[in-house]
Order: sequence, then C-alpha cells, then structure tokens
Amino acid sequence: MQSQGSFTVGGDIVFSDALGTGGSGHIAVNQMYVQYKIPPSSRVAVVMVHGADLSGKSYETTPDGRMGWEEYFVRKRRLSPRPRVAGEIGVRSDVFNRVHSGAALPGAQPLISRFSNEEAWTVFRFGPTFGAPYPDEQFPVEAMDRFAKQMVPDLNAMLPAPNPTHKALSDLALSLKGAVLMGHSESGRAPLEAALINASGIRGMIVIEPPGGCGMKYTEQQIATLARLPILIVFGDHLSVAPRNWLGAFENCKDFIARINAAKGNATMLYPPDLGIHGNSHMIMQDKNNLEIADLILDWIDRNVGTKVTSF
Amino acid sequence: MQSQGSFTVGGDIVFSDALGTGGSGHIAVNQMYVQYKIPPSSRVAVVMVHGADLSGKSYETTPDGRMGWEEYFVRKRRLSPRPRVAGEIGVRSDVFNRVHSGAALPGAQPLISRFSNEEAWTVFRFGPTFGAPYPDEQFPVEAMDRFAKQMVPDLNAMLPAPNPTHKALSDLALSLKGAVLMGHSESGRAPLEAALINASGIRGMIVIEPPGGCGMKYTEQQIATLARLPILIVFGDHLSVAPRNWLGAFENCKDFIARINAAKGNATMLYPPDLGIHGNSHMIMQDKNNLEIADLILDWIDRNVGTKVTSF
Repeated sequence: MQSQGSFTVGGDIVFSDALGTGGSGHIAVNQMYVQYKIPPSSRVAVVMVHGADLSGKSYETTPDGRMGWEEYFVRKRRLSPRPRVAGEIGVRSDVFNRVHSGAALPGAQPLISRFSNEEAWTVFRFGPTFGAPYPDEQFPVEAMDRFAKQMVPDLNAMLPAPNPTHKALSDLALSLKGAVLMGHSESGRAPLEAALINASGIRGMIVIEPPGGCGMKYTEQQIATLARLPILIVFGDHLSVAPRNWLGAFENCKDFIARINAAKGNATMLYPPDLGIHGNSHMIMQDKNNLEIADLILDWIDRNVGTKVTSF
Repeated sequence: MQSQGSFTVGGDIVFSDALGTGGSGHIAVNQMYVQYKIPPSSRVAVVMVHGADLSGKSYETTPDGRMGWEEYFVRKRRLSPRPRVAGEIGVRSDVFNRVHSGAALPGAQPLISRFSNEEAWTVFRFGPTFGAPYPDEQFPVEAMDRFAKQMVPDLNAMLPAPNPTHKALSDLALSLKGAVLMGHSESGRAPLEAALINASGIRGMIVIEPPGGCGMKYTEQQIATLARLPILIVFGDHLSVAPRNWLGAFENCKDFIARINAAKGNATMLYPPDLGIHGNSHMIMQDKNNLEIADLILDWIDRNVGTKVTSF
C-alpha cells in the first residue's frame, strides 16, 4: 500500500441550541467522510458510495468473510476512496433533542428508517420469501444474520435538499484530478447528480440498482452533460419477482441509456443474465460471484475510461 | 499488508414494530463493528476503541492530515483491529419512530449528545477559551473545523446496560488469541470492564483519559483480577485548568494504580509532563507529537506484554 487514510469533504459549521449536553454552540454538519487506500502505481481512482440503511461496510469484507470490492479494486491497482455518507457522520440531529424537551412537536422529527431482515430478504432479492433463497441465489444467505449486523439506522431524512453528498462527490473527484464514481441503491444516481453539479473531475459513472430508476426528468441539456462521460448501469437478477418494482427501475434505466446514446453518449447496461450469469442480488458487491462481477466492471473501466495512471 | 477487512462481534436479533418504513420485523442490534489491518509478521494485536461523540476516525489520519495511530501501529508491526462502537452500527433507534407516531411520549426518547466546537475546545483542553490555544498546545488547533467534522451524534444513551461493547471486546480478544485493549475517554475503562467479564484473551490494557476516573468501586476480587494483567493509564497536560474535573480523574487513576500494585499488579501512569513533554490534549492520538506518544506506548507494550508474534 502506497498510502491510506481518511478525510472529510464539504460540510458546514452551524449553531445548535439542542446539543443534548445542556449546552449550545457550533457544530459541523453535512460533511462527507471518505476512507482511501492507494496501491503502488495506481490507475484511475474509483469512489464507492453505499446505499440506504447501509454503510461503507457494503464494500468491505462480505458477510460470509470473503474479500469485498474495496480490497479487490485496490489489489487491481485502483485507488479506492470509499465515502460513507449520512449515517456515520454529518447529519444534524438536534431536532430529536428539541422534541425530547418539548420545544418541538413529535411530528417535527423525521422517521429513522431501518430494513427488517424479512424485508431486506425479499426487497434485496435473496429469495421469494424470508428464509427461502432463489435456487440460483448468489447472495451468501447463510450469513444473513451477519448481513443484518451491517444495517444501520438511516438518518438520511435529516439531510438538507439538495443532498450535500452530490456536491461533495463532485469536489472529491476534482481534488483527485479524475475519478470514476460508483453509487449503489439509494446513492445509485449520486454519480449522475454529482456530474450535473460539476463533471470536470469525473472520468466515468457506475450506477448500481437505483430503486427509482435512472431518472427520466433530466432535461436535454442535462442529458447532453451526462453524455460527455462513460456510464455503466448495473442490475442483478430476479428483477420481476421481487416485491419492489425492480423491473420498472431496470426498464427506466434502459430508456435512460437510449437517451444518453441518442445524444452521442456512451452508456451501457451490465445485466449479468445477458452473459449467462444468474442469481445476483441487490447486494451484488457481496454476492458469491462478487469478484467475477468486479472483473466485468474493471474491464469496462479499462475499455471506456482508460488505464492511465492517476496523478496526485 | 498481509490482510485487512472488517467484521462484527456480538449483537442480537430483536423484533421491532417501528422501523420507519411502515413495516415491522427483526433487526440486529448491539453488535460491535471492527475494522482490522494485519501487517506481515505482526506482533501482539492492539484493539483501539474510540470515545463519546467520536468514531474510529479518532485513530485514522489526524485532522491536519498526519499519520494516525492506526497506521503507525500497523507500520510498527502491530495488528490493529479498531472497533467502532455505538454510533456507527448497533444501536436500537425505533423509540424515535414511536415518538414520531405518537405511540410513545417525547420523554421516552433519549437525548442525542453532541459536543459543540466551543465545548470541545475547552473540555478537550485545546486551550483556556474557544479560539485561544495553550501556549504549548500539541493539538493541531488550526484544523479545528476538520476536527469538528469528525464529531458524530452520539447514540450511546440507547445502549442497554451493561454496555454490550464490553462483552464484545472480551470476545474479540479471545478470538484474536491475545490482544492489548486500548480505550479512550468514554470508552477509557472499557478494557477493564472487558477483563472483568473474561480476561483470558487480554494481554494488556491501555486506559486513556477516562473522564470519571479509573473507578474506585471495584471490589478486592475485581482488583485481584485486573492485577493479573499489565495496565497503562495515559493522561495529557493542562489537567487542572480545564472546565471538567480532569485533575480529579487523574488523581482517581493514581489511587487505582496504587490499589492494583498493592495487589501485586503492574499498573503504570504515562503522564508526559513527567518526561518533559508538555501540552498534550484529550485527543492525544491526534496531537502534533502523537507518534512520540505512540512510541512510549509501544515501548510499554514491548516491556510489559512482550514482543512475541500473535498466531492466527
């Protein structure tokens, strides 16, 4: 390892009169926390962003103890900053203390979301009913309890709009002098949103299973901006049988790809069943074939973003 | 690096009817998240636990961008699991959703604590008043804003008693087949509490600035248990001038050391001013001389715990 460490990007210093300690004063909010590892002679940086109710742990050791994408990408000589957004650091929580003291009504505080194991099982497509995996399931379902221990109370409802993560990702890519942004699930479209703020540091965008699709509300001007960069969309298997409308999200992303390519862009769908690879879940970076999927993504990066060394 | 990764220790699967998603089901709570790095030919494992309103970031890159204790200990060939307890993963948050929906009264939800920058400045002994450092201050006060961005809303009030971190640390030490436990601030006494649950995996205990002192309520039998292991207590400078009673905590720990040594134990105070080293703050692992302090701790480990290689 040439270098490793962590830092924050963005953030504001704001005043709070409900610190939960009896006092008041200034606190930092809305910053994005980033861990990074730089291998010797690294190629282009890949920034990995986690999804809802999850943390950067998504990309670390898998629930059943295998190598995750973070380590694999580093071993493949990609610099891997792996931001953890809202949930670990950066949210403003003082409204809860105001409700506690009676200074605000209970409805003023947002819900803190958390997937149950049962809901995660079907929504993340581990199987059709809790405890029963799909016959070709790739998620290591025997480690469900350990996966459950990666789930965190999600405080994203406390983030301001627009989500400060998008600007922070754009700034991070700029400071890295070139980066591929990867987003998963709730953060799936974050690379696109970051590019619409400032695309000049971004070299490519990888969008993994955004639940609401890739977004068809983009204007022609926005599509033209996004069409200047290579885009890879990734979806797993069993899209039509899950309780959420994954098939709708998939079809929406195919329409998005068509719009980008009609604007002379370079957008591609990585849908493993098309390659004879079956059974991938929503947690594709933790599936049993996660490194096979990683190789497909790394190959896409090499062919579409290039292999030149990132300069620091 | 021989190996790196992350896992969780402990935790329970419990039912929740207030998930914030409209549903109900089972979730995992009370687990301890651990990141680790194992250098080639590592010596004894050192487990670092962070304090209140903080995260594992305490031990990573310092606010002003220098190497933190995690990387330095790894480079010195110590295995470094670095647990992050409550705050990142593991707390049960559904009471907040019950208050939101009216199913519980506002007083039922705990306060979420957060240090303001002003309070952190004086309580953590960066200087006598906010913005003014002590003349010999070792904390990188020019990076105060970046330090503020490491602070997280603290959900420890939601942990059950006894704190499940203690058992998890004891279990972690056992699974490592020998570890030195290090605790900071609110977690300062965590190594002692872990040893009182099961000391058989623990090879040494490092207690850094526990705000309430080292605890004088221990029974003679508990003292006898703790006296079987080497103990290092660490305090920084300016103890008598800060708003909190740091001097009281320091004196209490000196009394604790006397009790341990009267029971034929091996407890030592590392108080840098005694060595002519002045100006250390409560965030001693991030101070400008943090690697000099680390060398003193590593030297104590070599002399008191030994240098033999940990087997895995």
